[in-house]
This record gives sequence, structure tokens and C-alpha cells, in this order.
Amino acid sequence: MNQSPIRARGASSNPSEMRVYGVNACTAVWQQRAASIIRVYVTKELMTQFGPLLKWCAKHKKAYHVVDDEALAKIAQSVHHEGVLILAQAQQPLGDNECLDILSSRRQPTVVLYLDGVQNPHNVGAIVRLAAHFDVPMILGAEGELPRLTPAAARIAEGGIEHVQLAILKKPKAVITELKALGFKLIGTSSHVKDSIYASPLPERCIFVIGGEVEGASGRLLAFCDEVRAIPGTGHVESLNVAAATGIFLAEFWRGHRQTGGTAKL
Amino acid sequence: MNQSPIRARGASSNPSEMRVYGVNACTAVWQQRAASIIRVYVTKELMTQFGPLLKWCAKHKKAYHVVDDEALAKIAQSVHHEGVLILAQAQQPLGDNECLDILSSRRQPTVVLYLDGVQNPHNVGAIVRLAAHFDVPMILGAEGELPRLTPAAARIAEGGIEHVQLAILKKPKAVITELKALGFKLIGTSSHVKDSIYASPLPERCIFVIGGEVEGASGRLLAFCDEVRAIPGTGHVESLNVAAATGIFLAEFWRGHRQTGGTAKL
Repeated sequence: MNQSPIRARGASSNPSEMRVYGVNACTAVWQQRAASIIRVYVTKELMTQFGPLLKWCAKHKKAYHVVDDEALAKIAQSVHHEGVLILAQAQQPLGDNECLDILSSRRQPTVVLYLDGVQNPHNVGAIVRLAAHFDVPMILGAEGELPRLTPAAARIAEGGIEHVQLAILKKPKAVITELKALGFKLIGTSSHVKDSIYASPLPERCIFVIGGEVEGASGRLLAFCDEVRAIPGTGHVESLNVAAATGIFLAEFWRGHRQTGGTAKL
Repeated sequence: MNQSPIRARGASSNPSEMRVYGVNACTAVWQQRAASIIRVYVTKELMTQFGPLLKWCAKHKKAYHVVDDEALAKIAQSVHHEGVLILAQAQQPLGDNECLDILSSRRQPTVVLYLDGVQNPHNVGAIVRLAAHFDVPMILGAEGELPRLTPAAARIAEGGIEHVQLAILKKPKAVITELKALGFKLIGTSSHVKDSIYASPLPERCIFVIGGEVEGASGRLLAFCDEVRAIPGTGHVESLNVAAATGIFLAEFWRGHRQTGGTAKL
């Protein structure tokens, strides 16, 4: 084993650095924040596709390593690396005040997500991918609750994480109260209520509360919601997957507020 | 190792039998088609929860086995068995004529899915779960193309497969042509077109063409579509996950045709 994989693996426990793998996830890092790149690993097969990135590395004196599949799997700690991995400076999550500053200056309409207990990296990654698609600027959660975006989740997000900020809140109730004062409505999502997502238009400023895979959102948080909506259906399955449900809520917000005269603002 | 796991594993290659595992998937088999149950495996921890099923087994002279986690993982060939597995007679997929008979007698509005290249069991299972939620009576696909519903996909479908029929078509083009004559519109889905899903109301009888994870739907099939629609968004990610996109299309069909006066028909 050469030295690089050892350094890269060590780096994974350094919170100021992050490993990103997967073609789309790495492409997004390269396009959105090249300056944060520390080191690149690529298989021979992907050297041509990532040629511009490797040239950029050479020019900016960043190391890149051509490795085989197996070595890359060790660095990625996953076989799903797709042939490319970037070690980059980690994006730092926002705190309470930054979250409020950014959202208070956003023009309407705006939708953000508040994750309450979602833990599965596949679901977290899928939600970030949806958030990037539907122009969600921020995903909020309580300190100790909002999961760190693992490399697996980052890959599944397909680069979406470069477009969505995470806010880890020390005082979530205080932040939500301030956001409510700014006109945001806290909308709970649950498969066990009668109010349909389609029953009335969604507010122009929404915080969707997305509950965990097993328990759903906490009762304490649901009680703090301005309203709680369900996705209507047959009832043949107990609930929808949390990412699938998030997509349907975000699409409905887009339809109501971003769609103009039948043509999407792209 | 006792005898049962060996028999069950042998049975997994028997196309007239299927293994179903996971709490919700097994509950659905038990509720929807108890008569098809051949044998039940359950861990000690779940004996109380599945007490009625075990009583039913005893009464109807079906074998049930109390096994430990590890043994069940071997039978399920997965650690995601959740403590229960049913060996059941397999549901037989529909053929061309049965598909046409059933859909011609369905009252409007009706939406079905045509899967063209979707292979990942997680996505197939997620799509079946969504289909069950949104009253999709049937998922169509070409022989050799439509994947068999694996036990992993059945678990992810959370029992949804008991409410959705699969149709494996020998002559897909002929069947689609007949369905078009019955008033069904073939709606392609693609992230690379300008027409938004929201641009105009969806027809009352829809066949949504859902393409594969990598290549999307085949050009030949898209050319046969009456229209092709996209889910509008920022363009920050290249596309949405195929199951997430399917959920958004099905929700929009429900909103347009099943939603009455703001209250869902549940």
C-alpha cells in the first residue's frame, strides 16, 4: 500500500476535511468550489473524463493520484466510488445566527427543510439531491440530530450538496420562532392527518418538517407547526419513503410558487 | 443448520414460490392473500406481533419456524429481514391479453407505469410502494426487460406489491397501440425536455414511461410517446432519482384527477 491511501483514510476523521466520491458529486465540487480541493484520486479509466481537473491540479500544485479500483475502494471505504474521489476542505455548517441572516434576506418564495430524525444516509443524500433540484437553499436541524453528510450520502446527492447549506441549530425553537416572525410557516408532514397537501395553497415561505424513517417527526415539533399536511393516497401502504414524500412536497411548492404560466423558471 | 433453511433456500430458485421478508411486506401478504402462504419463519422477538398469523398457520396446517436472527438472514439471504419471512406462492405476472382486458375495463381516471430499463431493486421496490399509494393498478414492461421483483425489492415496497400487478409483455408495442386506442396517452418522462409536467393538465388515462437509472427511457419508446414531460427545477443536479421522479408524476396525476374540492378521496 502506498502512502496516499493512508493519509486519505486518516483525513476522514478530520472534521475540517471531507472525502467526496462519485462522478457527479466530484464534478460538482470541481465546478462549485475548486479552491477547496486538497487532493484527487482517479482510476486510469476516468483520467480522460477528468482531464481538465487533473490539469488544474497540476497547475495549482495539488496532488493527484492514479489508483486502481481496489485501492480507491479502500480510500472511499466503499465500492461505490465510481472511479473518482476528491479530498476537500469540508463545508462548515451554518449556525443559528447565520441561518437567520441568510433566510431573512431571501426574497419570497422560499422553502427550506427541517430534518427531525432522518438518519439513513441514502435518505439524507436523496433529500439533498431533491433540495438542490427544487432550489431549497438550506436544510435545518438540531445539533446532535441533523446527521453529518457522510461520503455515501454525498454521492447519492449527486453533487446537490454544493448547492444546499446545512444549518445545525443550537436553539432550534428560538430560530423557528424568529423565522415565523419573518413570515415562514412551519408545515409538518405526516401520513396520519386528514389535511391534504393539495387542500389549500402552500404559504410563500415554508419550513417543511421532515420526520424520521420510523417514528416520523416528534410530537413536540408537530405541535409547534402552523399546520400538518399529508400526501393523499389509497392507504394501501402505511406511508411513503421519507425522500419520496419530500420530493412530492417540494414539487408542489414549486408548482404553486415557481411555475409561471405553465412554463418552469429554469 | 436445521432442515428448514435449506428447503427455503432451495425454494428461492423455484419460480412458483417467493420469499417475502420485512414486517410490512409480510403483513401485507398475510392480509391480502393468506391462502398463498406456504411456510412462515419468525424470530422469537416477533412472535407476539405475528401471533395471529402463527395461530392461522397452526389452524391451517402450515409450518412455521421460530428461528434466530442469523438463521433468518441465511434464509432471506439478507440482514434486512426485520425478523419475519414468508415463503409464499408467487404472484404470476399478467400477459399481454390479461393486461388489455383489465385496463380496458378500468374506469377513468387511470394511470399505469411502463418501466423501461429500471433495474436497481431499491428503485423497483420504491416505485411499487409509490404505485400502491397512488392507486396504480399495474406496472408494465417488456419481457426480458421488466425486472423480477426480488425479495429485497418486495421488502422496500413495504407490502405495496400486494396491490399492484405486474404485466410482462411479449409484444409491448402492440399492447401500447391497443391501449392508445382505448384512450390511454403514453407520457414520456425526461429531464432533458422543455415541456413541464405542470404545463397542461395530464390526460385522464396515462401510461407514464419510466426510464432506467443511467440511460433514461429508450429513444425508440420516447418517439412513440404522445408527449414527453420534465419535472421543472434549477438544473443544479442533472436529474432526479427515478423513484423520486415517479412519485412526483404520480402525485401530480392524483392532484389533477383524484383530488375533489381540496379533500383527498382516501
